[in-house]
Formats: sequence, structure tokens, C-alpha cells
Amino acid sequence: MSGRLAVIGLGPGDARYVTPDAQAALAGAEALYGYGPYLDRVPVREGQSRHASDNREEGARATAALHHAAAGASVAIVSGGDPGVFAMAAAVCEELAAGPPAWRALDIAIVPGVTAMLAVAARAGAPLGHDFCALSLSDNLKPWETIERRLDAAAGAGFVIALYNPISRARPWQLGRAFERLRGVLPATTPVVLGRAVGRADEQVTVTTLAAADPNAADMATLIIVGSVETHVIERPGRPPLVYTSRSAQGARA
Amino acid sequence: MSGRLAVIGLGPGDARYVTPDAQAALAGAEALYGYGPYLDRVPVREGQSRHASDNREEGARATAALHHAAAGASVAIVSGGDPGVFAMAAAVCEELAAGPPAWRALDIAIVPGVTAMLAVAARAGAPLGHDFCALSLSDNLKPWETIERRLDAAAGAGFVIALYNPISRARPWQLGRAFERLRGVLPATTPVVLGRAVGRADEQVTVTTLAAADPNAADMATLIIVGSVETHVIERPGRPPLVYTSRSAQGARA
Repeated sequence: MSGRLAVIGLGPGDARYVTPDAQAALAGAEALYGYGPYLDRVPVREGQSRHASDNREEGARATAALHHAAAGASVAIVSGGDPGVFAMAAAVCEELAAGPPAWRALDIAIVPGVTAMLAVAARAGAPLGHDFCALSLSDNLKPWETIERRLDAAAGAGFVIALYNPISRARPWQLGRAFERLRGVLPATTPVVLGRAVGRADEQVTVTTLAAADPNAADMATLIIVGSVETHVIERPGRPPLVYTSRSAQGARA
Repeated sequence: MSGRLAVIGLGPGDARYVTPDAQAALAGAEALYGYGPYLDRVPVREGQSRHASDNREEGARATAALHHAAAGASVAIVSGGDPGVFAMAAAVCEELAAGPPAWRALDIAIVPGVTAMLAVAARAGAPLGHDFCALSLSDNLKPWETIERRLDAAAGAGFVIALYNPISRARPWQLGRAFERLRGVLPATTPVVLGRAVGRADEQVTVTTLAAADPNAADMATLIIVGSVETHVIERPGRPPLVYTSRSAQGARA
């Protein structure tokens, strides 16, 4: 079987974050699959078909792309950020594991990219400068109790926490509940960074505290970083503050 | 003050991972600072000075670069991977916080890159496909007890764990101790990925289990990913296995 499926990370929203590796993988594909707004970022190429689908249809998109590749084509699925972080690479593996054995002969390539938390952290300074975790607040595929237990464990052990999928129309209360939960573990003064649409023209980065963090300031395009007791803010006259987490840590609770 | 300091992520070892944003930032610098092997990756440019220093001299390197920028120059510090993940961005912020107030007027830019765990994950499949954390095993700047507590907390709560700085000549036993510790929390069959020099010519990716994981198979250039109970391996005839973590989770201990 000569088919090939590449799962490609476009990075955070602008062509200047698309690696040469990703550019080459995009150029080499006969067919592109993806969520419409991600496909829209890819320059149109003659002879390359496009298959847009909805944001919530990861499984169906992966299956369609695998079928297409199994027919002998060179297929690519595009992801925002990095395809391995709350994105399409895991969906492809899940479908491949459950699918026909012939799919295991396909050439599968995952092309990494700059994931949202790295882009937001870069804009703010170095809030991920020490041990950190990445946690999805979506309770579509895991119970909310699991999310709360992970928030407690991560914050209690001194990890900085990057929150993906913080809020959506269908999940309006989860972020507020997460902030509440973290206020039970971390000091009120803990720095919080909200990064919206980083890398796009309407990019917005806000630095606040855990006490003041407002869930209504976030939307689907927002990535949130909650600091640890080792996270500090440097105020700068005439410039946005720099947020960083010390490289040295005692790891003590506050 | 017109000085500028960019802290630039080169990604995992090959020019095909250097984003156009990073390329532009490198081209715009009058002076480059960094660990020698990272500087060696950057194409030489006429009129651009180079200041190599040792791997362990992050603080001194940051200070030298800040002084140079404060003299009005456009300066860049290069990092492997992403500068915000166990790299130079936090060191720059620490020195800036402790340094003369005039440094706060400098134009500081952090240019993100593909960090090692994303590159290793991409080679292996999608082991970071659900909640995960990144933890440095270096006990140079934090007590070993803190590291053990974080390993327990992360594994117990169901996070996949990416281990940075696993081993070095000066820290020979930490990785073995970490595997032992994790064996107390996770099933013996938990998938483990060891990725060495990913993105370089001598790249090597090994998939094993927590029971069989051998610390002697790792060195300073290795990034290790320890799965959760939701991490699975797909065997593929004639191809390396695919490792992925399910997007859905119960979050239960094994």
C-alpha cells in the first residue's frame, strides 16, 4: 500500500510560524482535510483537493482521510498549533487502531508545530519556565471530576498549568469552576495569563491574578496559563509586564 | 533606550524546524549569544558577532546579552527547542528582574519554537494526545524530594509525563530513581518513549514499557515520555509502532 497520511501542525495562526517541514508536507499532499478555518490558512495549490469539516468531527475527519490515503493517495490533515496536543494526531491513531488492518501499512507522519501554550508563554515572557502541565477543560470526553482532581494535583504539586479548550457555548461554566477550584489551592496573587488569538491580527494578551481572573474574558480561541508560587511579574514602564516562572523551586505550597 | 533582545527557539535540531519568525529574528540581530552547539546551527552572517558560552552558564549569558542590548544593540540569544521550556527565556527574565531598572525599558521578544517533547511525540504518534505535564529531572535548582512529589502527583492524577534533562554525567542516578518511583504508581505495561536527538541525523526513537525502561539507554540529548493508563501502542508490520493517548479518559488509577 503506497498511501501516505501526514498530520500537520500549522502553529498559532500566522504563516510566520509554519515550519519549513510543515510547508514541504503541505506542498506534497494531493488532498487536504481539516477544520475550515485551518484549511483557510493554507495557500491554495492547483490540483490539490480540499475537504473541510466541522470542529467537532475529528473522528469522522480522521476516518475519511485514512480511507483516502488507503486508496493510494498522499493525504494531509491540518491542525492549528501542534497536531499532537489536543488535536488531530490522537484522533488519527484512535481510528487507525479501530480500523482495518490494512491501514497499519500506511505511511503515517506527524509534523509538529508550535502549540498555543508556547506562543502565549512567549508573548508573556516565560511563565512555563519551570515544570508545567497542559490540561483540557473540555468535559466532553472525560468526567468533570477527573478535571478537578487533575487541577488539584497539578496546582498542589507546584506545576504551572496551561488550560486548553477553556470555554465554549456548550461549556459555559467550566472555566469559572476551574478558577474557583484553583483558588482553593493557590494564593490569590498567583499570576494568570490569558492569551487570545495569539499570532493573529486580533491577538490579545492579558496578565491578571487568580483572584481577579474573569472567565468571561476568555473564549474558544483563548489559552490560559495559571502560574505557580514560583511565578513572578516584572512591571515595565510603557511596556506590558513580563511574567516568568523561576528556574529554581522549593515546590512548597504557599 | 533603543536596545533589543530576542530569545529565539531553533526547534529540535534541524533547519526544517526553524520557523520563518525565528529566521527573521536571527537575520535581524547584530550579536548572537548561546551555547556553542546551538550557535553552530545558525547560518553565519557578515557583520554579526557571536558569543558562545557553556551549557551551564545561562545566568551569565543572559546578563551579558542584556548589557549588550542596553548599550543599544539588537541582540539575540538562541535556544534549542522552545526558549520558554527549560531554556533561556526564564533565565533572561530572572536577570532582568534582578538587574538595573533601565533594563526594563528594553524591547524584549521571545520567539517560540518546537520544543523537544512535541518533536519526540510526533515521531512516536500522539503520546501527548491528552492531559500531560513536562518535568525537569535536574535537581540542580530544586530538591529531589520536590521532583518525586511531582512525579507522584502527575502520574497519580493520570497525566502523561514528559521528562526533560533526564540524565547527565553529574546526575547519573535521577532517571533510574524516577522510573522506580513511577513503577509504584503506574502499571508495568505503561508505554514509555525515549527520543534521542530527534530532528538530527542520528535521531533514535525507542518504544518500551515502564517495567523494561532502561535509564542507561538515555543521555543528555534524550527526551522521555511516560504514558498514562490511557496510552496505547499500535503494532505495525514493517513499521515502527504508533504510541497514542486516547482523547477520552476516565482518569482512574490502574
